Amino acid sequence: MDNKQVSGSDLKSAPANKLELLRVAMKDRGIATYIIPASDPHLGEYIPDYWKIIPWLTGFTGSAATVVITDTFAGLWTDSRYFIQAEKQVSGSGFEFVRPGAFQRNDFMDYISENAKHGDKIGIDGRLISIATFRRLEKRLDDKKVSFDTHCDLIASLWTNRPPLPFSQAFDHPIVYSGKERSAKINEVREQMRKQDADFHLLTSNDDIMWLLNIRGSDLKYSPLLLSFALIGAEQIILFIDEDKIPIKLASAFDRLGIVILPYEEISGILSSLTEGHSILFSPQATSVELFNSISKNSKHIEDISIPARFKSIKNKTEIANISNVMIRDGVALTKFFHWFGNTQGREPMTENSLSVKLLEFRSQQKDFLGSSFETITAFNENSALPHYIPEEGSGAAIGERGLLLVDSGGQYLGGTTDITRTIPVGIPSSQQKRDFTLILKGHINLALAKFPQGTRGYQLDFIARRAMWGSGMNYAHGTGHGVGYCLNVHEGPQSISPADNKTTIEAGMLTSNEPAIYREGEYGIRIENLVICYEDEETEFGQFLTFDTVSLCYIEKLLIDKTILDQKEIEWLNSYHSEVYDKLSPELTAEEKSWLKEKTEPL
Amino acid sequence: MDNKQVSGSDLKSAPANKLELLRVAMKDRGIATYIIPASDPHLGEYIPDYWKIIPWLTGFTGSAATVVITDTFAGLWTDSRYFIQAEKQVSGSGFEFVRPGAFQRNDFMDYISENAKHGDKIGIDGRLISIATFRRLEKRLDDKKVSFDTHCDLIASLWTNRPPLPFSQAFDHPIVYSGKERSAKINEVREQMRKQDADFHLLTSNDDIMWLLNIRGSDLKYSPLLLSFALIGAEQIILFIDEDKIPIKLASAFDRLGIVILPYEEISGILSSLTEGHSILFSPQATSVELFNSISKNSKHIEDISIPARFKSIKNKTEIANISNVMIRDGVALTKFFHWFGNTQGREPMTENSLSVKLLEFRSQQKDFLGSSFETITAFNENSALPHYIPEEGSGAAIGERGLLLVDSGGQYLGGTTDITRTIPVGIPSSQQKRDFTLILKGHINLALAKFPQGTRGYQLDFIARRAMWGSGMNYAHGTGHGVGYCLNVHEGPQSISPADNKTTIEAGMLTSNEPAIYREGEYGIRIENLVICYEDEETEFGQFLTFDTVSLCYIEKLLIDKTILDQKEIEWLNSYHSEVYDKLSPELTAEEKSWLKEKTEPL
Repeated sequence: MDNKQVSGSDLKSAPANKLELLRVAMKDRGIATYIIPASDPHLGEYIPDYWKIIPWLTGFTGSAATVVITDTFAGLWTDSRYFIQAEKQVSGSGFEFVRPGAFQRNDFMDYISENAKHGDKIGIDGRLISIATFRRLEKRLDDKKVSFDTHCDLIASLWTNRPPLPFSQAFDHPIVYSGKERSAKINEVREQMRKQDADFHLLTSNDDIMWLLNIRGSDLKYSPLLLSFALIGAEQIILFIDEDKIPIKLASAFDRLGIVILPYEEISGILSSLTEGHSILFSPQATSVELFNSISKNSKHIEDISIPARFKSIKNKTEIANISNVMIRDGVALTKFFHWFGNTQGREPMTENSLSVKLLEFRSQQKDFLGSSFETITAFNENSALPHYIPEEGSGAAIGERGLLLVDSGGQYLGGTTDITRTIPVGIPSSQQKRDFTLILKGHINLALAKFPQGTRGYQLDFIARRAMWGSGMNYAHGTGHGVGYCLNVHEGPQSISPADNKTTIEAGMLTSNEPAIYREGEYGIRIENLVICYEDEETEFGQFLTFDTVSLCYIEKLLIDKTILDQKEIEWLNSYHSEVYDKLSPELTAEEKSWLKEKTEPL
Repeated sequence: MDNKQVSGSDLKSAPANKLELLRVAMKDRGIATYIIPASDPHLGEYIPDYWKIIPWLTGFTGSAATVVITDTFAGLWTDSRYFIQAEKQVSGSGFEFVRPGAFQRNDFMDYISENAKHGDKIGIDGRLISIATFRRLEKRLDDKKVSFDTHCDLIASLWTNRPPLPFSQAFDHPIVYSGKERSAKINEVREQMRKQDADFHLLTSNDDIMWLLNIRGSDLKYSPLLLSFALIGAEQIILFIDEDKIPIKLASAFDRLGIVILPYEEISGILSSLTEGHSILFSPQATSVELFNSISKNSKHIEDISIPARFKSIKNKTEIANISNVMIRDGVALTKFFHWFGNTQGREPMTENSLSVKLLEFRSQQKDFLGSSFETITAFNENSALPHYIPEEGSGAAIGERGLLLVDSGGQYLGGTTDITRTIPVGIPSSQQKRDFTLILKGHINLALAKFPQGTRGYQLDFIARRAMWGSGMNYAHGTGHGVGYCLNVHEGPQSISPADNKTTIEAGMLTSNEPAIYREGEYGIRIENLVICYEDEETEFGQFLTFDTVSLCYIEKLLIDKTILDQKEIEWLNSYHSEVYDKLSPELTAEEKSWLKEKTEPL
C-alpha cells in the first residue's frame, strides 16, 4: 500500500549520513529525543511523497511506523503487518527495528518513558502527531519532567531534492455516484452539529471533505483525494485548499452553498480567530497538535469522531447499487487475469511485478476505473508470508514452478472502492497448504454467514473468523476486517472486525472486509478476502438482527480446498457463492474464459 | 442474590412517606438532586443489611441499582438482569423504574445531565460512590455548573430500626485450602508494589483482604467476608477492622508479620497522615470519594486495579485441586436434589421456596460447606423469565403440572465457591422449549470447547456462546460468564466473558462461569451454567494456546434436547461430560440414585 515514487535505490544512499546530520541538528537545538511519525498534517494512512520522511531516512516503506532517535539510539516501530518487512528493510540503515507486542502500536512510548532523562527536551513536528497520541505521550512521561518542542521540523533543512506537495484538480462526484446532493449532506451534518452543540466543526481528514462536498481529486496515488481542511459553521463552510485545484464551475456551485475557498496554509490563523468564544467539534485522533494549539483558548472543545466519518461509513442505496456493479467489473478483471495466468504460467517468464502490471492492465479496461486503491501485493511463496509485501520496483521474485501465489489488490472506481485477495497454487499444493487454506476458508465463510443483533461490535465477531484456525493452534496477527470507503480510502473507519476494543457497532450499510489469513514465515502466506455489506435480517421479540452480504466476486480456488474439513453449511455457502460469481461475471467474458470459469465454479 | 433479612412486607410500609420525609430533608439542606447507590463503603456487590437503603426506600431488592430523587421525580435504574423484577417491585412505591439501554448501567447520569439546572446542588453520600463513577458524573455535568455535597447522608436520621453493622469472628483459612502462606502472598504483593513504584497500597474490597491474609468470616450472608480496609506499606500492614473480630491466635500470627490492627473507623484519618509525601496505589473503581478525599493532597496517586484482585483471579494448584473436590460434593448435593424432585414431584405440594430449602438441606450435608454463595433462584415457568428472580419469603409460586423449572444455586465451601444452573422440565416439554434449550446448550458446549491464543479477551469469546441463538433471532441481555472467587465472592473480577469491552485477558488458572440463557417474558426462562477453569493447551509457532476445563458436575436434562440440532462434536462433548459426571458422582450416591443418574447420563 506504499507509494513507490521514492525509489528503493535512492533510499539506500548513505542513510547513516542522514542520521548523523539529523543528530547534529538535534544537538544544535538541544533535542535529546526526536520522534518522527509516518504522517502528514491530515493524519491519514496515505501521505504524499513530500511527507515520506521515514522511507527517505530509514529505507522502511510500510505505511505505519514511528521513528525515535537519541544520540545513542535510532529505532523504528511498526505494527505486526510489517514486522518481517521492517526487519529486512531497515537492516544496514543505522536504524534498529523494535518488535512490539501484537496489536500494540505505541510501544515507542515505552522506550521513551524508560530512557528519557529528567529535564530532557523531546522534539516532534506538531503537524504530524494527533493531539490524542500526544496526550498519551505526555501522560506516559508525566513523572519525567521532560519538556516538548512541538514546532520542531528538523527534516526540511536536511532533505534536499524533496518532492513538492502534490497538485491535482477537483472534479464533481455527481448524484448518480454519490446518491445524495452536497447540500443535503451539509444540512445533515449541521443538524448533527446542533445536536452536539457545536458552532464549528473542523474537518482535517481529506476523505471527510471529499465525501461532504461530493468532489474527488488525485493528489494521492491510491486515494482520489485533495489535500484540504474545512471548517463548517452554521452559515458558511471554509474550504482550505490551493484555489487552483477548484475549477470555476465547482467554485461557483460552492459559492451558492456558502462554501468559501481560502489558501491551504491559512487554516491555523483562521481557526484561532473564528473559534474565539465559540464551541468547536473536532476529532482528537485526526487533529494535529499544531491545529489543536491554533484553536482559541477561549472556546469550548467538543471532542468526538467527525460527523462525516460516521455518516460516510453507512453507504446509501445508490452507493450500494453502484458497489454491486463495480464488483462485477472488478471481478471480470480478476477473472481475466487469473485465466490469463493459468494459460501463460510456465510458458513465459513472470515476476511478481510483471503480474501486478498485468492485473492493472485488466482493471484499466473497466468502465469508470480511476486507478489502484493500494499498491498491488503479488507475492510468491516466502514473500507471501509478509502480510503487506511489496516487490521492489522493476524486480520482484520470479514465479517458480511450485508454490503459492497471493494477490491482494483493489481498484478505485467512480462507483466504489474494491479490495480483494485470492491465493492460488502454482503446481500441486502440499497437504499442509490445503489444510491451512481450508481452515482460513472456514473462518471466512463463518464470518460471511454471521447473524447478530443490532448493537454488536466488530470485536464480538472477530472470533468466528479465527475459530477453526485457533482450534488447530494457528493465528494471524492482524485484524479480520476494516471498513472500506466509497471511491475514497480503501481503509476507512470507524468500524473494524478485530480483537482490538473498537466500540463502534456494525450497522446496516457498512462495507467491511473479511480477510482471515495465515503466515508461515519463510514458507508461504494465505489470505482470502472479500468485502461484505451489512444489511438488516429479521426482527424478532429479541430485537433487530443484522447479517452480511458478500459483494466481491471472484472464484475461490478449489484445488486448495480439503473438502473433508468443511461442513455441509460451509460447502453450501461456497457452492452458492460460486454460482453467483459465474452468473454475474460470465456475460462479460469470452467463450474461453467462460468455460474456464464454469469449471472453477463447479459445485464442490 | 439478595439478602432477605429486610423482609418484603416491611418494605411496602408507606414508602411514599419515606420519600416525602427525604424530600423535606433535601429541601432543608438545599439539595436539588439526591443520588443513592446500592453500595456500602467497600463498593462490592454484597452489602450488609445496614446499607440496604434502596430496598428500604423503594421495595426493589436487586443487587444493582441507583436511585435519583428531585422534588418532582423519583426514579430507579438497574441493569438488564433486573428489568422485569424492578418493574414489578417498585410499582406503587412512588418510584419509577427507568429502563436504560442494554449493557449500560449509568444512564441515571443522562437523566441528571438533562434535568439538573445551573447552580443546583447535588447530594450523595461520598462513602457509597467510587471516585471513578463520581468523576464520570462530574464530567457529564461539566457545563451545568452544579455543585456537589458528598458528605450528605440524609438516610441515617430517617431510618428508624435500622439493622446494625454485622459482627462475626475471623477464622484462619489454612494452607491446605489457600495453597499459599499469607507471608508469601504479602511478599508477592510488595514485589508488585515496587514494580509500580507504590509506597502504599490501599485495599478497600473485603475479599482482597481475606485472600491476602488467608482469613474468612461471616459478616455477609453469602460471602465469607469481614468488613475491613487495609493499607499495605513496605514493612507494615494496617488492617482496619473491629478488633474483637480477630481471635487472639490470629492476632499474634498477624503481629509476627507486621500486621497491625486498628479500628475500622480510623481508615480516613490514618490514610491522610501516612500518605503525606508518598506514593499510593489504589483502585478508582473500588475506592470511595470519601477515602479518595482522605488521601493526602501531597502524595502521588497510582490508579490501577488492586494487586490482590489480579493475583487472586489466577487460582493456584492447591486451589484448583480443592475446587475439583468441591465440585464433586456440590454435584452430589444437586444430584440428590434432582433425584428427590423427580420422585416427589406430583406427590406432595411444592413451591419455589420449599425447593430452595430442600436444596440447601442437601448441600448442608456436604463436608466443609459454609452456606449458599448467593440466594438460590428456584423459578417456575414465567418466573424463570426473570433472570434473577427470588421468590418472596415463605411463598413463591407452586410447582405446577407442566412447565420449566430453573434452579440457579451455589455453595461456599472451604475449598471453593460454586455456581451452577440447571433447567429441567416438569411434564412433557414443548418443541419450542426443546429447541430453545438445545440452542443454548450448543452455545454452552461451544464455549466449553473454545481454544484460543494467550492474550485473548473475554469479549472475543462471548459470540461463540450466542452464535446458535443469534442464528435463530434469539439473544440474552446479560454477559455469558463472570469470574468466580475461591471461598470468596461468587462474582469476582477482573475477567468476564461478555460483549462489554473488558480488556482483561483470559489467563490459565482463571475460574469463570459459562451461562448462556434465554428469557421469554411471561413464558419461561432457560439457563445452563457450569464453571470452567482455563488451562494451557499446546504451544505452536503461533504462540501458547489456552482452553477450558468444565469443572461443575451435574447432568444436563436430555428430555429437553432436540438431538437433530446438535452436531457430532457437540454430542461427543455431552456424552463425555455425562460419563465424567457419572464416574465422579456415583461413588457418593445410594444405589437408587446411582441407577437414576446412570439413565440421566446415558449417551445421547
